[in-house]
Amino acid sequence: MKIQLIGFGNIGQGFARVLLGKAGYLKKRHGLDVKVVSISDITGTAVDKNGIDLRRALSVMQKTRKIINYPGAKKLSGLEAIEAIDADVVIEATPSSIETGEPGLSHMLAAMKNKKHVVTSNKGPLALKFKKLKETSKKNNVMFRFEASVGGAMPIINLANEMLSGDEIYAIEGILNGTTNYILSRMTKEESSFDIVLREVQELGIAEADPSYDIDGVDTASKLVILANAIMGIDATYKDVKIQGIRKITPEAIKLAKEDGYVIKLIGEVKNGNLEVAPRLVPVNHPLNVEGILNVALLRADIAGDITIVGKGAGAIETNSAILSDLISIWRNARS
Amino acid sequence: MKIQLIGFGNIGQGFARVLLGKAGYLKKRHGLDVKVVSISDITGTAVDKNGIDLRRALSVMQKTRKIINYPGAKKLSGLEAIEAIDADVVIEATPSSIETGEPGLSHMLAAMKNKKHVVTSNKGPLALKFKKLKETSKKNNVMFRFEASVGGAMPIINLANEMLSGDEIYAIEGILNGTTNYILSRMTKEESSFDIVLREVQELGIAEADPSYDIDGVDTASKLVILANAIMGIDATYKDVKIQGIRKITPEAIKLAKEDGYVIKLIGEVKNGNLEVAPRLVPVNHPLNVEGILNVALLRADIAGDITIVGKGAGAIETNSAILSDLISIWRNARS
Repeated sequence: MKIQLIGFGNIGQGFARVLLGKAGYLKKRHGLDVKVVSISDITGTAVDKNGIDLRRALSVMQKTRKIINYPGAKKLSGLEAIEAIDADVVIEATPSSIETGEPGLSHMLAAMKNKKHVVTSNKGPLALKFKKLKETSKKNNVMFRFEASVGGAMPIINLANEMLSGDEIYAIEGILNGTTNYILSRMTKEESSFDIVLREVQELGIAEADPSYDIDGVDTASKLVILANAIMGIDATYKDVKIQGIRKITPEAIKLAKEDGYVIKLIGEVKNGNLEVAPRLVPVNHPLNVEGILNVALLRADIAGDITIVGKGAGAIETNSAILSDLISIWRNARS
Repeated sequence: MKIQLIGFGNIGQGFARVLLGKAGYLKKRHGLDVKVVSISDITGTAVDKNGIDLRRALSVMQKTRKIINYPGAKKLSGLEAIEAIDADVVIEATPSSIETGEPGLSHMLAAMKNKKHVVTSNKGPLALKFKKLKETSKKNNVMFRFEASVGGAMPIINLANEMLSGDEIYAIEGILNGTTNYILSRMTKEESSFDIVLREVQELGIAEADPSYDIDGVDTASKLVILANAIMGIDATYKDVKIQGIRKITPEAIKLAKEDGYVIKLIGEVKNGNLEVAPRLVPVNHPLNVEGILNVALLRADIAGDITIVGKGAGAIETNSAILSDLISIWRNARS
């Protein structure tokens, strides 16, 4: 299987590292031979139709942070690489934008039009243009898989669509952002104010310098849109989500909740066609009460009842569990 | 898809009820037309190659508890029905025996030899003869699916094998028996003794008159064997499990644990090739701390990290979510 990797930051480099460790396993267990034929970042594209030396590519990135320094790399953009280079699958792992969805959106559409399957961890394009992407993949008869775009290693989308295939999912609730969950967990444990904990968490590198993407619920809302589309077939986009973040949560509110046996969590919910992100009271013993950077999703299914899944919501290595399982699924389906 | 239903107790009747409600959905979403061509219980077999009237079969059972009273039913045993009647899939849902695995074991082997796919909720045969069943299915080129045998509606086996297909699972821990979890949850809440709570729970019908299958860990051990085989490829049987039940747990032990921030749970664990069932201390905020009759399983995966899934561990309707998803998977794979 010939793969093009578009975007070579945390996730892309994590993919290379995972592949280096897993090549033997993939071959033995799934009969799958993965060859990365190009890697693009904003500086250019490394190309090798016999398979890029991933160890070398990682070392180039560690030393220079630019893929253009890989031996023989070309001044091709990601989009040009998708158009010009022969491959079976494009892994789109560029930074996510919730304003325009670019450059990921153009990459994915171009890949599909070039009859390449798409695997992605990139939320923005899906939160804005899910329907268009889905339709384009169908029209071009290619597979479109995006488990890594929601909940990192937590396999929520494929779980709902494949493991609960006889069920109808009529509601979804979840904690879909690890940073806010970590902040709220610490506020609860330390009885500290939001501002103090945020500063600590920024120093730890868990929250960004501009934390608003996480704490104002933008990230949770993007993921909720993807779940609503992919699992419940709701034609929603980011602008349909009612969003409230966690800035205004006080230590007093957390303390009061605690006295009544509750914790406060930032919950995304799809129910009766409505998408909403807001702080909610969750009973201490409820499956949605998970701590730290964990993510959790609860699916309300008509036969199975409530199914909850918990996993690491982020991480350069962990997220590649989802990318790899999507790749294997494409491999299986393409052969049959 | 022509189906034979062997065993028409709680799970079998639940299947009929679910199918009555879901026929339209299965047709529309999956293009799957399910026809039940025979239903067997210990009294005989209802047969109709055009599809049994499930409403009528359920009503016969409600009134007489014997399928032989279905119009035109024959004095065929389940085994004879498998040999004699044309079908694509056998659903084996007879009562489970951990001593002999019968009659389920013979049913499953006969079905496979007759080139019929097998779906089952029946633990005993798998806990005793997993390897033989797996090999027989391979030899006869039929599919063998058993998601319903562990954790009811909780899709743990397919989750590990299909959603985490790029991962290696190196350990599994879980609460795999709802009755013991319910007893321990009540002992914790009410600070009552094991004997008192057991009596209450028997009166509620949650524990059996002979509760030893649940509380002595036999049921948990059977399920653990299935997970070890199916997910980790360990050739283990029931006799390989070290088992300790919950009879000796005192309110004092639970109270002491609570003061330190722990709960006591009956945990099944596979790790380093060892299978063990025993009461364990679980931190209150740990994903394994789920209450009441819920089941939970934690998979330790080499790329994804820890993935936890929670669901209803039993229930005539809920368990059929797993049976249905196995059927749909067979349908998809058989067509491709």
